[in-house]
Amino acid sequence: MASAAVVLVGSEMLDPARRDANGPCARAALAEIGIPLAWTARVGDRIEDIKETLETALSLCEIVIVSGGLGPTGDDVTREGAAALLGVGLKEDEAWLGALRARLEERGRKLTELGRRQALVVESAEPIPNGPGLACGSWLKHGERDLILLPGVPPEFRWMMEEHVRPRLKAAYSAQPSVRTVRAVAAGIAEVDAEVVLKPWYGQAGIDVSILPQRGVHRITFTLASPPIPSLAAAEARVREALASGLGDHLISLEGVSLEASVGLRLLEKGWTLATAESCTGGLIGHQVVRVPGASRYFLGGVVAYDNAAKVDLLGVPSRAIEENGAVSREVALAMARGAKARLNASCAVATTGIAGPTGGTPEKPVGTVWVAAATPVSEKAVKLGYPVNRESVMALSANYALFLLLGMLR
Amino acid sequence: MASAAVVLVGSEMLDPARRDANGPCARAALAEIGIPLAWTARVGDRIEDIKETLETALSLCEIVIVSGGLGPTGDDVTREGAAALLGVGLKEDEAWLGALRARLEERGRKLTELGRRQALVVESAEPIPNGPGLACGSWLKHGERDLILLPGVPPEFRWMMEEHVRPRLKAAYSAQPSVRTVRAVAAGIAEVDAEVVLKPWYGQAGIDVSILPQRGVHRITFTLASPPIPSLAAAEARVREALASGLGDHLISLEGVSLEASVGLRLLEKGWTLATAESCTGGLIGHQVVRVPGASRYFLGGVVAYDNAAKVDLLGVPSRAIEENGAVSREVALAMARGAKARLNASCAVATTGIAGPTGGTPEKPVGTVWVAAATPVSEKAVKLGYPVNRESVMALSANYALFLLLGMLR
Repeated sequence: MASAAVVLVGSEMLDPARRDANGPCARAALAEIGIPLAWTARVGDRIEDIKETLETALSLCEIVIVSGGLGPTGDDVTREGAAALLGVGLKEDEAWLGALRARLEERGRKLTELGRRQALVVESAEPIPNGPGLACGSWLKHGERDLILLPGVPPEFRWMMEEHVRPRLKAAYSAQPSVRTVRAVAAGIAEVDAEVVLKPWYGQAGIDVSILPQRGVHRITFTLASPPIPSLAAAEARVREALASGLGDHLISLEGVSLEASVGLRLLEKGWTLATAESCTGGLIGHQVVRVPGASRYFLGGVVAYDNAAKVDLLGVPSRAIEENGAVSREVALAMARGAKARLNASCAVATTGIAGPTGGTPEKPVGTVWVAAATPVSEKAVKLGYPVNRESVMALSANYALFLLLGMLR
Repeated sequence: MASAAVVLVGSEMLDPARRDANGPCARAALAEIGIPLAWTARVGDRIEDIKETLETALSLCEIVIVSGGLGPTGDDVTREGAAALLGVGLKEDEAWLGALRARLEERGRKLTELGRRQALVVESAEPIPNGPGLACGSWLKHGERDLILLPGVPPEFRWMMEEHVRPRLKAAYSAQPSVRTVRAVAAGIAEVDAEVVLKPWYGQAGIDVSILPQRGVHRITFTLASPPIPSLAAAEARVREALASGLGDHLISLEGVSLEASVGLRLLEKGWTLATAESCTGGLIGHQVVRVPGASRYFLGGVVAYDNAAKVDLLGVPSRAIEENGAVSREVALAMARGAKARLNASCAVATTGIAGPTGGTPEKPVGTVWVAAATPVSEKAVKLGYPVNRESVMALSANYALFLLLGMLR
């Protein structure tokens, strides 16, 4: 069976703590075709190092997908590394150059000498168009093997994987097993607890399980391949059943729908609208909500009430509630949610108030203490969270938990 | 200058979404000695693949640190891969075998046939003891180069790095050059234009330049090494001067201070406070502002006015301004900024209103059209932006541009 390698190019990627969105994206696309990811590497912006890394990748795997180093700047040298390996030169792709010029002219801008580099491809390359971006991709052959150069910018990489690379690999490797994928989304549960549900499935022939935890929301992907699985339909049903019963209320979707999009769908079903009242999250919930296209059909807006005066003046939180309970309390969180509903004339609201740190904690309310609240036309709830993590994670986890709380009340 | 590679062995590591604790641990230890991490790879449990990966790593880097594959089970084959590369066999390390037996006996357990594998080392190896665990590490030489095999269990890896690997590398590489780093941050400028400033520095001996663009803010890092640079102080001064004059107003910091933190510092200097009025960014600016610890000293809060009614009711934007100019206009952006200042009683405000897409564009105001505004006690400004990118990028670029606009007015 063919296998694939992913190579990330870019000195900034040499920090192993740096998160990589493109490797997981490629792995998921490959898994759908039944091609396992067998090798990955990260290499800096040096032509010789890139050449040698690609050579190793191509000796180990039939398909090598490269992310990054196709931009206009001088340290973008993936093209040069691939050309050196294949023993050919570079050329400008005329069609892409024309497309670049047209796109920029639409915006009243001109193509600079440096910008032209984005139309540069390896001589033997078949160019891969880039819908959301400007750098041209390259599909190269090294004997029978495929060497695919894509830009590192995640939305561009994802678009080109979806629109070009995956369909073409699927056609080329059609003798591959047929595959089904179940994409689950879970929230409000620790990764270790989600793992307990997944554990029985690890190591089974034809079943690939991955979990990608992101700020309190877990994306769980099952890829089922036949052969060796005799009936994909039966296996898929078993997986869905196991996830539904194992994850219970923590299961957001079995179709990969995000937490914020699930909230949106429920609101649209009920014809309800949403407002936000955010203190420690500073606007993150609102931002997550509007990342969903079409959010204007249910999201009205909100108040970022970071300062206590803003909680009182803009949300109508009673000063006494703050004095008696502190700003980080059930009472204030609920009053914030009620205030957002009233001030924005919305059916529902979510609220956050907490201590994100690194300072401001007390023995009773240590750093990481957050109250989240949600209100609908029929009920309201508040939950106290405590996260022993850094400032940014406290904010991200709280924002997602607030949306998870509301989702439960909308179901 | 010597550089290092880290190779992670283990099929479970082939999920690129899987977090790796050992790479960051090695990188931090190496950085303390002044050795850059120049290459990383993840490889599954196959002897041939491990051999080839180590060969590449050793051809690129003087020091190769391998994590994983030293355990007792049949799929732990890092030793075999390294032995194949060096053309030698394996042997049992008598001293470690004795230590293993003694440790297990202490716990009333016996050494099994499988467990014995943990005393197996490459014939030419110098064994590295493992304080918290049972698998013996190996220090190998490949010509002048160092190949270091460590177990993948993070506490064991960390212990062996700290107790043995780092001290020994430090002694061996004490003749390392000294290094200085300049971390610049730039905003409000396209990557290609920033590149023009950096271009003269590429390829100079002893100078490493990298640029990391993130949603309209570029992190530029110069690493200067002596030797070969005769005077680091002089070279650093030249780099700082070139960045300052080349980037002009687009230079946010030469000390790696983020855009939002720079805004905070200027506000604190002046004793001013900040409020936000966000439409298309949904709260992203507020969230970025509060990501800076201590933001409560200057950030009061804001209004997310996604719906037009919220712009009127919560920010006091005149209905007429919306009717006459549309919600995406200079007039509305400025009115939103003024409204946020007034409603939150703040010295300064930023505002955004735009069409993030994918729908809602018109010929006059295509998707990606955003007006951003900023107001201080002494001035106000509005700028029209046009980004030919997707919804999420439009929001991110607009949020950063709004902060950049305000920063310019605070300087």
